Amino acid sequence: MNLDTYLFNQSQKIVRALETFLPKKSERPSSLHEAMRYAVLSGGKRIRPILALASCNAVGGKEKDVLPSACAIELIHSYSLIHDDLPCMDDDDTRRGKPSCHKKFGEALALLAGDALLTLAFQVLSSQDPKNSKRNLEITRGVAEAVGSSGMIGGQVADLEAQGKEVDLPTLEYINIHKTGALIAVSLKCGALAGGGTAQEVQALMRYGQYAGLLFQIVDDILDGEGYAKSIGISEAREEAKRLCGRAKDTLKIFGKKGEPLARIADFVLKRNA
Amino acid sequence: MNLDTYLFNQSQKIVRALETFLPKKSERPSSLHEAMRYAVLSGGKRIRPILALASCNAVGGKEKDVLPSACAIELIHSYSLIHDDLPCMDDDDTRRGKPSCHKKFGEALALLAGDALLTLAFQVLSSQDPKNSKRNLEITRGVAEAVGSSGMIGGQVADLEAQGKEVDLPTLEYINIHKTGALIAVSLKCGALAGGGTAQEVQALMRYGQYAGLLFQIVDDILDGEGYAKSIGISEAREEAKRLCGRAKDTLKIFGKKGEPLARIADFVLKRNA
Repeated sequence: MNLDTYLFNQSQKIVRALETFLPKKSERPSSLHEAMRYAVLSGGKRIRPILALASCNAVGGKEKDVLPSACAIELIHSYSLIHDDLPCMDDDDTRRGKPSCHKKFGEALALLAGDALLTLAFQVLSSQDPKNSKRNLEITRGVAEAVGSSGMIGGQVADLEAQGKEVDLPTLEYINIHKTGALIAVSLKCGALAGGGTAQEVQALMRYGQYAGLLFQIVDDILDGEGYAKSIGISEAREEAKRLCGRAKDTLKIFGKKGEPLARIADFVLKRNA
Repeated sequence: MNLDTYLFNQSQKIVRALETFLPKKSERPSSLHEAMRYAVLSGGKRIRPILALASCNAVGGKEKDVLPSACAIELIHSYSLIHDDLPCMDDDDTRRGKPSCHKKFGEALALLAGDALLTLAFQVLSSQDPKNSKRNLEITRGVAEAVGSSGMIGGQVADLEAQGKEVDLPTLEYINIHKTGALIAVSLKCGALAGGGTAQEVQALMRYGQYAGLLFQIVDDILDGEGYAKSIGISEAREEAKRLCGRAKDTLKIFGKKGEPLARIADFVLKRNA
């Protein structure tokens, strides 16, 4: 497989599906819907939903069964970026080379667009095939837990409280596991559950997700010279990244050939560390 | 029945249940959990969850079956107030006679506490008895639709865009139906669904909710001299309130004695118009 082609094709599928889940600009209130669409459709690697699709494939499931959950996760990722960029948070004027949502639409509308995307995510999660209600409710609960006060938002708060301070390694790990890791791990969980994976397969893919989430963060830190790289030093951070990549791939052994895309994605993330 | 005693007892039940659903302050991050608890537990009439319980009773259901949904609705109401009070929205320093959430905890934490309460609402909705997955998923979807971009948030945006302008009656009605009406109507829907009501009963209670939601708003407007009262005049607004109260009570006829608390609540709301 060619990884670039694979990532491109998968992200196209996700963008097409996101288009269908997002309200049209023609629906009232159009300003809100325009802001929501702007935030979600202005680029992004779509790595979380790609991981959800790959996880579903790893357990032999059909991609269409996880596509709504994968999109819900991307909607949540978008909402978290809008709120992170607000003046009272990171106060970022740009996002992916374009004006951030509040720069383009004003703070109030950006705040509400974020709220609406989070809500839409749960609407999408709860509007799936009623034949699989029990499983869909489990997926919905898993996502809610991952992005709530004991998950992603908890990590954002810890990150906020760490700003301008010397951060010890346990705090740094707490932030990484929660702020970025939780949403990545639950992407894998959703794929495994929606694809009908066994308990053992779900477990293995969640572990992959946890390693991959940390790998992501540590490579980001190495590129920025922040976080881990600052705390344990660049060369130790590079070693840790290699170890995490290896562990992530180890969890994929039970999937054989079907786990290949996930293994390749782990390698791809590691290699950004150049 | 004594309505004051009834409302007091019901609100006590709801506060006790909210206490169990909210994360403890001792759980990390404690600042976030403190802000969430402050926003939810600092008073309020609990009218939406009370309506959900009464709706469940009207169809002969058990209150415990709707208590999680009723609490989820109150969590959503709390989140919407936190975000409404933020400087970029209404910029309110006080709420129920106490400092608003961002005045007490700062803007960033208030923003995230709101996000976390919305997320917690969906966690509570999706963590219910897996024996009734299909119904619980329907309730979750109903709530998400009611509070999303085509519901409550849509109304907030329309309200925002109407500020400082002459507002025509259709716009005013759109704002009222969406900003406050949608959450009230879905409170009734949740009660009817969780209580195992028939399609006809669910319909009737949703209609009650729509009338009650408008009644609420119009009485608020009469007391404030805003909105409807400004647009159609106080005396016409009073007439409209009476008509809405009558229509709300008409929808309750099929429930006989079991609909009494809902009828009394409608009268109670109308009488605030003194």
